[in-house]
Amino acid sequence: MNAQERVRHTLADIGARDGELRSFVAVHDEAGAARELQRASSSGGALQGLPVGVKDIFDTAALPTRYGSALYSGHQPRSDAAIVQAIRRAGGVVVGKTSTTEFAFLNPTDTRNPNAPGRTPGGSSAGSAASVAAGLVPLAVGTQTGGSVIRPASYCGVVGFKPTYGVLPTPGLKPFSWSLDTVGLFTRTVDEMAACASAIAGQDWSRPGGGGTPVFGIAWAYPWEPLSASGRKALEAAAAALRESGATVRDVHLPEWLGPVFQAHDAVQGWEASRALADEYEFHADALSPILRDYLTQARRVDDARYEAGLADAAAGRQNLSTLFDGIDVLLTPGAPDEPPQGYGSTGASTWNRAWTLLHVPCLNVPGLQGVNGLPMGVQVIAPIREEALCLRAGRVLQNALRQRG
Amino acid sequence: MNAQERVRHTLADIGARDGELRSFVAVHDEAGAARELQRASSSGGALQGLPVGVKDIFDTAALPTRYGSALYSGHQPRSDAAIVQAIRRAGGVVVGKTSTTEFAFLNPTDTRNPNAPGRTPGGSSAGSAASVAAGLVPLAVGTQTGGSVIRPASYCGVVGFKPTYGVLPTPGLKPFSWSLDTVGLFTRTVDEMAACASAIAGQDWSRPGGGGTPVFGIAWAYPWEPLSASGRKALEAAAAALRESGATVRDVHLPEWLGPVFQAHDAVQGWEASRALADEYEFHADALSPILRDYLTQARRVDDARYEAGLADAAAGRQNLSTLFDGIDVLLTPGAPDEPPQGYGSTGASTWNRAWTLLHVPCLNVPGLQGVNGLPMGVQVIAPIREEALCLRAGRVLQNALRQRG
Repeated sequence: MNAQERVRHTLADIGARDGELRSFVAVHDEAGAARELQRASSSGGALQGLPVGVKDIFDTAALPTRYGSALYSGHQPRSDAAIVQAIRRAGGVVVGKTSTTEFAFLNPTDTRNPNAPGRTPGGSSAGSAASVAAGLVPLAVGTQTGGSVIRPASYCGVVGFKPTYGVLPTPGLKPFSWSLDTVGLFTRTVDEMAACASAIAGQDWSRPGGGGTPVFGIAWAYPWEPLSASGRKALEAAAAALRESGATVRDVHLPEWLGPVFQAHDAVQGWEASRALADEYEFHADALSPILRDYLTQARRVDDARYEAGLADAAAGRQNLSTLFDGIDVLLTPGAPDEPPQGYGSTGASTWNRAWTLLHVPCLNVPGLQGVNGLPMGVQVIAPIREEALCLRAGRVLQNALRQRG
Repeated sequence: MNAQERVRHTLADIGARDGELRSFVAVHDEAGAARELQRASSSGGALQGLPVGVKDIFDTAALPTRYGSALYSGHQPRSDAAIVQAIRRAGGVVVGKTSTTEFAFLNPTDTRNPNAPGRTPGGSSAGSAASVAAGLVPLAVGTQTGGSVIRPASYCGVVGFKPTYGVLPTPGLKPFSWSLDTVGLFTRTVDEMAACASAIAGQDWSRPGGGGTPVFGIAWAYPWEPLSASGRKALEAAAAALRESGATVRDVHLPEWLGPVFQAHDAVQGWEASRALADEYEFHADALSPILRDYLTQARRVDDARYEAGLADAAAGRQNLSTLFDGIDVLLTPGAPDEPPQGYGSTGASTWNRAWTLLHVPCLNVPGLQGVNGLPMGVQVIAPIREEALCLRAGRVLQNALRQRG
């Protein structure tokens, strides 16, 4: 299948299968997709016409952009977000926009989870995770402010990658919390992720080896909440598979400063979100979901002192990252609190992601494990700031170990 | 004059005087301004209906937004930028949009300098500086990525204030370089600035006293270029006035790390701008000014290693800020290289501002001095991160000292 056929096939596949899945909210017609393909091909980029879904929290000049809110019905930005241009330069073809919760917060979309019927795909990057899980596109773009990439990846059983804050560009993203908003990606395998993320970032993160097998660390107690039965099961399975494959896995204790960093996320996000969405809150509160409206009402009460203290806690954590990675290369934790929650009333909680988002460290969800009910339960690989190559390399080791164990 | 009369007077004044000045690019009609006043009044904010100009790099839902580029002719955003909402909550009335250079880079606007006929008002916040200098509005909003607030304030002889990066919110600003883009303000006096900035930020930065008179530091050698004759004259006059008023002024040597921070600005801005404006550059290069197009062509060559090294240099500088403020409370430097350059072909250079922007420290341009040709030459007060109150307090001491000297 050449690139043109592949794009055409993707559009047909979305047309045939996405009515039920509801992972896309806008899709190019054939002419639009052909134009995108022409642009992507002329770039000569490594993705060679690969179809890509982009979360509808990013501006696109050729597709409407709603940010998951009725307030932006029919909104047509003038220019493409920076990440859209980066995909194009890498040779990717944006075929459509994927569903996002309202302004990438918590109000659920109607997207379904292809790997857990009757359960949420998570959020806020619901459509990106689900479209990749369903095989509609091999690559999709999301964002994470709390746990909006890693959590839906865990729930949908796909690879989710949140690189270091700022590594993938944010201009043209509807801001929620600018110190946290991070662009991330979804694929089916870690190898594909390494190749796609490298192409888009203009990096070489897929070189194998380079320093031998990473040493993995696992903590069994966390400052936010105890491990769920499914979380523990996934970590134990990951540790066993890694040890069988010959990798070193060490039990670690998390540093004291991690608790305050986790707590600080709330103040940082609240202070910034109440400013970023001031127009929508003050002039159009009735058009917001109750969950967002109530959140913004609360968020407004975060004072400057709490915000500045939160930023200071995060900065201190980044300074002390070496105490988190003492004796290990990467840390493993569950990607989400549990298996995906039943029903569609909630997108789940970002409890296991918030601290890492605020610390700006790269996180990679590796799928292939199940919780106590046999549903998807991901393990996230966490690496030091700017160690994307290490994070992906460790993720590949883990994925291979899990496959060999079968 | 009540608030309603004041707004009406402002609109009439702009209508009568701005044809020549060209500081505004869009102005509310009476009905639009009345609606803004109603919104501002209902907020009960401290600004009590004060008319405000907002740089046309910010989105406004009720006024067109061109970002200084023909590419965005007729562009009408759906929502107001966060700073516009913050002004409204503070009781300010946005009466219109002020001219900006193309995407807040270097291509000049046709705005005139009310205090230096035949010379540039500077940029990129040309209209904001000029409209305040001409007395059309008492308060205007700008942005600084290199020297786009402090430099035009110096050239136009007004107060310009760039608080710590991130203190005033950026959502709804067209990004150029997200690690540098900082929202700033223009007023006629430091007292007005302290009152207005406090109201908008929801802070109390105008409390007098609190720790006695600040100790001022002045360096006579800089890692970027020698002092011009006008720069030296302004610093000497400032030092003499301060000493006469009883303040302590110390000669200081700048720390070694400041040179690399100054150099790093180029890489940080280039790497980010080439991504932020990728759509415009790749699809509409013909519609860009030659100066921006050439810049983006060069900027694209900044590789990740240089970018990351630049960010690291800046972070290290922030860690070592105490060596910059050793024995002093604030530092004084010229606000611009010289008096405003002749003609309108250039907006001048940001040489004296770049390092401070990248360091994220608050900077305040204090007017009232002249260069060797009798034209405006500002002195900027630089304070440690988050020390807005100190910066403004020191600025007030300097302004009063200059006034007493006459």
